[in-house]
Amino acid sequence: MSEQPGQDVVLFGGTGDLVMRKLLPALYHLHCDDMLGADVSIIGIARESIDTAHYREIAREHCQRFLKADFDASRWQAFEARIQYRALDALDAASFGALAECLGDVARRSQVYYLSTAPVLFTAICRHLHEHGLITPASRVVLEKPLGHDLASSREINDEVGRYFGERQIYRIDHYLGKESVQNLLALRFGNALFEPLWRREWISDVQITVAEQIGVEARAGFYDKTGALRDMVQNHLLQLLCIVAMEPPASIDADAVRDEKLKILRALRPIAEAEVPLRTVRGQYRAGASGGQPVPGYLDEPGVGAGSRTETFVALQANIDTWRWAGVPFYLRTGKRMQERLAEIVINFRAVPHSIFGKGAAPLRNNRLVITMQPEESVKLHLQAKRPGDEMQLNPVSLDLDFAESFQTRRLEAYERLLMDVMRGNLTLFVRRDEQEAAWKWVEPILSSWHKSADAPKPYTAGTWGPAASTALPGREGFHWHEEL
Amino acid sequence: MSEQPGQDVVLFGGTGDLVMRKLLPALYHLHCDDMLGADVSIIGIARESIDTAHYREIAREHCQRFLKADFDASRWQAFEARIQYRALDALDAASFGALAECLGDVARRSQVYYLSTAPVLFTAICRHLHEHGLITPASRVVLEKPLGHDLASSREINDEVGRYFGERQIYRIDHYLGKESVQNLLALRFGNALFEPLWRREWISDVQITVAEQIGVEARAGFYDKTGALRDMVQNHLLQLLCIVAMEPPASIDADAVRDEKLKILRALRPIAEAEVPLRTVRGQYRAGASGGQPVPGYLDEPGVGAGSRTETFVALQANIDTWRWAGVPFYLRTGKRMQERLAEIVINFRAVPHSIFGKGAAPLRNNRLVITMQPEESVKLHLQAKRPGDEMQLNPVSLDLDFAESFQTRRLEAYERLLMDVMRGNLTLFVRRDEQEAAWKWVEPILSSWHKSADAPKPYTAGTWGPAASTALPGREGFHWHEEL
Repeated sequence: MSEQPGQDVVLFGGTGDLVMRKLLPALYHLHCDDMLGADVSIIGIARESIDTAHYREIAREHCQRFLKADFDASRWQAFEARIQYRALDALDAASFGALAECLGDVARRSQVYYLSTAPVLFTAICRHLHEHGLITPASRVVLEKPLGHDLASSREINDEVGRYFGERQIYRIDHYLGKESVQNLLALRFGNALFEPLWRREWISDVQITVAEQIGVEARAGFYDKTGALRDMVQNHLLQLLCIVAMEPPASIDADAVRDEKLKILRALRPIAEAEVPLRTVRGQYRAGASGGQPVPGYLDEPGVGAGSRTETFVALQANIDTWRWAGVPFYLRTGKRMQERLAEIVINFRAVPHSIFGKGAAPLRNNRLVITMQPEESVKLHLQAKRPGDEMQLNPVSLDLDFAESFQTRRLEAYERLLMDVMRGNLTLFVRRDEQEAAWKWVEPILSSWHKSADAPKPYTAGTWGPAASTALPGREGFHWHEEL
Repeated sequence: MSEQPGQDVVLFGGTGDLVMRKLLPALYHLHCDDMLGADVSIIGIARESIDTAHYREIAREHCQRFLKADFDASRWQAFEARIQYRALDALDAASFGALAECLGDVARRSQVYYLSTAPVLFTAICRHLHEHGLITPASRVVLEKPLGHDLASSREINDEVGRYFGERQIYRIDHYLGKESVQNLLALRFGNALFEPLWRREWISDVQITVAEQIGVEARAGFYDKTGALRDMVQNHLLQLLCIVAMEPPASIDADAVRDEKLKILRALRPIAEAEVPLRTVRGQYRAGASGGQPVPGYLDEPGVGAGSRTETFVALQANIDTWRWAGVPFYLRTGKRMQERLAEIVINFRAVPHSIFGKGAAPLRNNRLVITMQPEESVKLHLQAKRPGDEMQLNPVSLDLDFAESFQTRRLEAYERLLMDVMRGNLTLFVRRDEQEAAWKWVEPILSSWHKSADAPKPYTAGTWGPAASTALPGREGFHWHEEL
């Protein structure tokens, strides 16, 4: 029993975008770095009636295209030997027979069932896996967003999946948590005595979390128009990032210790009553504009968007955390499509020095800030004031790279690589627990509900900008401004 | 009156080592960077009967040798035109006539009298300057160490110089305070909100200040054997550096605001009673050993050292500052000749994280520390723990360069360049005030006195090492160790 048992990674939605663009390339990378055990096999599952050879062909094509120079044909051969394909209709119990046959004696191996499908299929898939005896205590299930569209539907999914898998077998993925820079934020906070004393209301003025996309709604209009930015981005990614910034030091890095602390933050989020929604949130929808120098259509003109849709493609909001640590420190969150840049970042703004000793002749001192960037490149930068070399005491802003990747000369893992490794190893720390997910839904529901009832439409903004003017006004009311406007 | 009046920089000891190796090269650098006003002239003063042409010759020779590639013969011509030489016997009043003549109407210009001579001459020089009417309210005097060999003799010099110059005309130089890295420490502490909250007993475990020389007593044996390391280095340089680290935030960077805060630290140093001296101090004397791969003699065999001399060439001691900020934080100081390396540094050791969340499998977390290096190269480095890129949460030490000189692309000034500029501009911030100097003497006197009475000789150490074993034991008693031994 001391030997690592074999593992099967079963990719439902195996011909879909996520599997082809992210999961198979991630597994290939892990294979090339010898991080994938010799006895790990990969089974692609979809409805298409193709055979394994054909599936490998498609997989190779995609990996080659997405990995570019990283693709090595000679390594691919050994990798593709791990891959099988089985055609299967998730709604047809009988069709799971082929999968059962392929998996063989499940008690002798462990299984990762990665559900990269529409969530309406989650229940059926889990039930059929169960009925075919394919779930053992060593099996794991990975759930991709969206996990419901409100608290009730999210509970429903969790109840259904929970019938067949215990909570500690369920890996709700939030790929922002797998980013190296987010991990490094945890390392900086809890691996150093320097940051934790500063990490509180006395020294931090405000926190800003931005996830801006340059693309529009693209091919996802059918889904997106029923969803909107609040459900698609804020309820999950932005609130998870907020938790990582705001949580108290956990007793350990173990999954439940960390998730208990994140949950405490989600539960300490001051509820935004429906009446306050117009004051504390801004929703926007993009109009025609330009992106990357090219004219682009407005949201309402995108194919697949309902006529007169009031779906928001932009959200900005102010969150408050009612704890001793964070009382009075606004957390500004914003996300949108067709923004000026592709940018995902967390900005921790430290308060100004209480008094400048350098006198009126000196340049005004800029506040310190820590900026964790996740997109377009990952980095962690600390912005300080330092003396300009020379005969006078003149201070100038400088930025310090805390990213360190270069200090280590080790390849940085892509978020999905790390998260897949964690699933395979059974490490739940970076995955969202049911109670977290439901607490997040509970907090966003009054916003959804207020918007739904409101006579106002989302505020228009021109594609290729930073959102509606009201977004600037949001932090402006308390004397702050979004980071890029500095 | 709005025009900058002309200025004469009068270098007493004008043929000596300091003038030739430091002051003239510094003035030349300032000249080349257009930082020296057009109407600044330089007058070398010494006993040698040479003329200006000959003096310029000597100056050129030295500058060329010390500046190497920085020396530019074409710039030198304009620079040397600023230089005059006058032969003068400091003890002979009449010989000051030549200087008076050279200076002309002193009321129309300002004068910097730089006394780079033996301190026994300070009184005579000041008196003769006064008698010849060469001191105006705009005149300044710069005093080089040693300023006395105990509190009484230091008071005597200060009283004498104080008869002719007001305290705000007196520039007691401590060239460590002119180092860019020491200036940057001030900028970091008071230009950023990040450091000050950490700068106290709650977060700092201990502070270490080391000024180690690789050279032996060299040609200074006659002076050094009467002086020793405590008077030569600790009373002035090391205690000044301690003040810069430990002082409360001054209200401004103005001279007296800063010097008031330094004085408060010197007065808050817990006195070392004579009985405690053996416990809290270590004195050493080097024996024959090796330096830079070559055998070198012991101190007692150096030419000019008295037979059986008990002069210390090494001191280590533990200082405590009895304030709310620093109670319980030991400040370890050490300095010596014939050490293993030439090294001047300040190390701020932060406390360990109170609890590691990373578990027993993780590598032990190293404490954070800030290291300000003055020699052999100037730098400011912050040592942190960061996540090693990869799939696991493994932390590794990394060091962050806070020096920033490269961010600015500006030439870093040598300590003497800055300090000369400060004297010429009348900025006293980096110069030691009389009360500071006397408070420092007061604190070191019981140590001198205890050593004098003790039957023990200094502890021997081999040239080319870090001093006697007792030095390691000093921080060891409280569980610390000197930085390089990590």
